[in-house]
Parts: sequence; structure tokens; C-alpha cells
Amino acid sequence: MSKIAYFGPAGTFTEQAAGVFDPSAQLVPYPTIRATAEAVIANECSQAVLPIENSLQGSVTDTLDALIHLEGIQICSEIAIAIVHNLMVRPDNESASIKQIYSHPQALAQCRGYIETHYSGVEIAASLSTAAAVEMVMNSVEPLAAIAPERSARLYGAQIIAEGIQDSENNVTRFVVVAKQDNPRTGRDKTSLCFTFSEDKPGQLMNVMAEFSERNLNLNKIESRPTRLGLGQYYFLIDFDGHREDKEVKAALAVIESHCSQLKIFGSYERMNINDASSFA
Amino acid sequence: MSKIAYFGPAGTFTEQAAGVFDPSAQLVPYPTIRATAEAVIANECSQAVLPIENSLQGSVTDTLDALIHLEGIQICSEIAIAIVHNLMVRPDNESASIKQIYSHPQALAQCRGYIETHYSGVEIAASLSTAAAVEMVMNSVEPLAAIAPERSARLYGAQIIAEGIQDSENNVTRFVVVAKQDNPRTGRDKTSLCFTFSEDKPGQLMNVMAEFSERNLNLNKIESRPTRLGLGQYYFLIDFDGHREDKEVKAALAVIESHCSQLKIFGSYERMNINDASSFA
Repeated sequence: MSKIAYFGPAGTFTEQAAGVFDPSAQLVPYPTIRATAEAVIANECSQAVLPIENSLQGSVTDTLDALIHLEGIQICSEIAIAIVHNLMVRPDNESASIKQIYSHPQALAQCRGYIETHYSGVEIAASLSTAAAVEMVMNSVEPLAAIAPERSARLYGAQIIAEGIQDSENNVTRFVVVAKQDNPRTGRDKTSLCFTFSEDKPGQLMNVMAEFSERNLNLNKIESRPTRLGLGQYYFLIDFDGHREDKEVKAALAVIESHCSQLKIFGSYERMNINDASSFA
Repeated sequence: MSKIAYFGPAGTFTEQAAGVFDPSAQLVPYPTIRATAEAVIANECSQAVLPIENSLQGSVTDTLDALIHLEGIQICSEIAIAIVHNLMVRPDNESASIKQIYSHPQALAQCRGYIETHYSGVEIAASLSTAAAVEMVMNSVEPLAAIAPERSARLYGAQIIAEGIQDSENNVTRFVVVAKQDNPRTGRDKTSLCFTFSEDKPGQLMNVMAEFSERNLNLNKIESRPTRLGLGQYYFLIDFDGHREDKEVKAALAVIESHCSQLKIFGSYERMNINDASSFA
């Protein structure tokens, strides 16, 4: 049975994404994003699942930095998960009046409207993860509630008392799967890479981008991350449609390499349909 | 006397930046980045100082999102501060053996090498800000230490026992000053803006960037932030050399506006020399 590393603990949306990627694999939680990626480099797991982007909060910079700075991993797949938050209690407290609501600060922020409407005046408290909130609720005799994914309720035996309580319908997280190798060409691929320049010369970023546009290679995303060598020095991260084995992509990459002081290909992988986000209400 | 809002509490690097910007102003702390910016919109303060980027950690996304989503503020200046961490204790504990070291998790991470070398085995504890760490140290009779800016030591009466203990020399934070209006043309200006597209069409980001490069307007930075309307839909944020009143910039902006569904100019302001970062060792 293959082993898949994920940024834990159990019961999080990242574990859900790992289960969607391979329902038959053994899922192994790791405490940080870097440690999750390193599990693949150290051959402890064959793949690792990392959150890379949320439709409300933006990029997960720890994952971008792991892709930039770690050697020996490639992106081989991407998965989108619709973030559905649920309010849950200990089953014997189902009809009690809730005293406190626990969750990760991001989940609390994403359900603020619901809480204000239905639990105005109830104390809100932060926990380290949505799963930790459920564990705390299950271990207390007090009538507490947690905001967490449905999977957490099953895992810890909590009772869901309200489903889909997030304020926005557009809350989707995208995950990447990293492995030793990326994915073979499918014809519906995208490629992620980063590059940097040793000197600050006008027009050099434009020259790189022109290599894509001249070949009609559509850019999906552009980001920058610090090189850590000084203010104003960046790695540029780009996602574009096409596989690194495509003829046009190969030609573009050869020219780009000559413009840059560093070019690192994070991998080519099958492009998901953004509307295909798996939902777990 | 003019009032300047800053993202508090007192004793942080943001307060230092506000003091560098206007040494004679009254500095008023606010609890969040959004509240700091809103102090200008509500006419409580004439300017607000916000951290926007660190050379090791990258963009401060709360500041980017405030610039995108709030109306009625413009960037009028930028300031860089070299981040210098110091180890400090209560003066009566100067020669005692330190039991615990407190600071904000980012400051702890930035001094990890120093701590491991000089205080191996000493317990490390997180606080909500560097200033909160100093306050805690001053209020305890136990021999505790805090990692914080020099200004905090003066403010709380702490004794610095080691200066400049950060592991990297390249630790600089850039701040922007926002006001009701941006800055008049100086000839050494830069402009920050964001734009978005209503549809996902190949080459449209490239078309915008070409308007800058055709006019030799050097791009300093490119970022993306989610529009919150769905995965894969972004605001693109660009910094480039030039003032919005320059003839070439005006021409570029007129064309870009016709390509985009939304174009928002964050402001034009005098470009600092990145090597001019104020240091407070």
C-alpha cells in the first residue's frame, strides 16, 4: 500500500485532499509543510499533499518556499477542495446551550457572519487547527462547539448541528501533490516554475513573459517570493498551460533559461477543471 | 501636531518606521492593519504607516488587501527599516541566569542560530508581539529575557544584554505611508497599482505588461491576490518606476484601463534607495 504524507493533523481539509487523491493509500500526518515535503525526499512516503492556494486568502507561502528551496520533489498533480465548515458538539450536549465556540482563526473568520447571526454573545476561542478544536470539544463536559470539516466529526465522534456555515460560497483550497517525478504528458497539462535574475535590469521580467505569449502559452498565475538576499530581489513563480515535454514549451524554456540566473521547473501535471472542486458538506 | 496611525502596539518596528517618517508627529497605535488604514479614511489621523514587505518573509498580505479593498487612501511614501533584534532583561536581572526567552514567533525564528549557540536548552516561548514580550519580562521577578527592537528597551526600561542577534544581515522591512492623497511628482518616483480582468483570456496579462515595457517603464514588483470571487481569479499588483503624472505613464495607464475590468492606482510616491534602510542597532 502506498504511503502519502500530508500536512496534519488528521481531520483537516489537507487530509481530505489526500484521501481524494488516493482513497486506498495510507495517509501519514506531518507537523509542518516543510516536513511533509521532506517525507518524500527521505523516501518515507511516495507522495505528499500540500495546500498551495485558497480562493479567499491567497497563496500558502510555506508551500511556495518549500518548492523553491527544497531539491528532489516535483509537482505531479493538483486537487481542489470546497471548504465547507460545520458546527459540531459532543453528542450528549446536542441540545445544551453552547458556552464557547472553538476553531482555527481562519475558520472562525470565514464563519463570522453565521456566528454573529446565530450565536451572538457566545465566546469565540482560537485553537491550533480545526481538528484540535473538535478534540477539545469532545474532551470537555462543558457544552462547547467546534467549527471543523465533516471528516473531523466522523473521526472524533462529534455531532454536527449545522452544516455549511461558511459566509462565502467561493471558498476553495487548491492542493498540490509532490513526488520524486512529475506527471507524463496528457494533452491537458500545466507547468509550474520559478526563475530569478542576478541583476536588476529594466524589461527582463517582460522578456521572459514574452517567450510565453509569443507561443500562445497562457499564463494562469504569477507570484513573487523574496530570494532572502535583500529587499527587492525576487523569485518569480509562474503557472502556464502546457507540458514541459511539449515542443513549444521546450523552446520557450530554452530561451528563458538564457535570460535568467536560475530557472527551476516545479513540474508538469494534468490541469484540473476549477469547477470540479470536491465538496464534503 | 499631526497624528500618524501605525499598526501597534508601541515599541514595534512599525512604530519605529512611523517615527522615521515624521519625528515630530503624535503616533497613535491601532490593533489591526485594516483599522490602521481606516484611521485615515475616518480623519482620525492624517497618515498611517503599514508594513508591506519583508526581505525574508515576503509580502504582508493584510496590507495588500487593505490597499485593494479600501477606498479613500493613497500611498504617499515608503520607508525601509533594517530589522535589528536585541536580547533584553529586567535591569535587576542583568547577571542572572535566563530561564525563558520570549518574543513574537517571527523574531524567535529570525534569531534561532544565536539562541542555539548562546542559550541552548533555555525554554523559548511565543508572545503576541515583541513589545508584549518586553512587557512580560519587566512584569516578572523571574529572570526572563525578551527579543525585541531597541526602542522597546527604552520604552519599558529594559536592559539590552546583546545587540543585533538576528541570524541574517538581509532582514529589512519596507513600510508604506498612506494618506488621503499621494505625493506630487519629484522625478524619482514610483507608482503602485492593481488591476483585474472580467474574463480569463490568453495573453491579457502580457498585453498589460507590454504597455510598460514598450515605454521603458521598469517594473519593480509583481504580485497576485485573490479577487475572492473564485479560485484562479486574481488582482495583479504592480510597482513600476515613474509618476502617474508623467506623460509616458499617463499614456500607458490610459491603454491599460481599456484592457482591464478594474484598474486602481494605489498612489505615486518618491522611490527610496533600498540601501538607505534606517538601522536601529
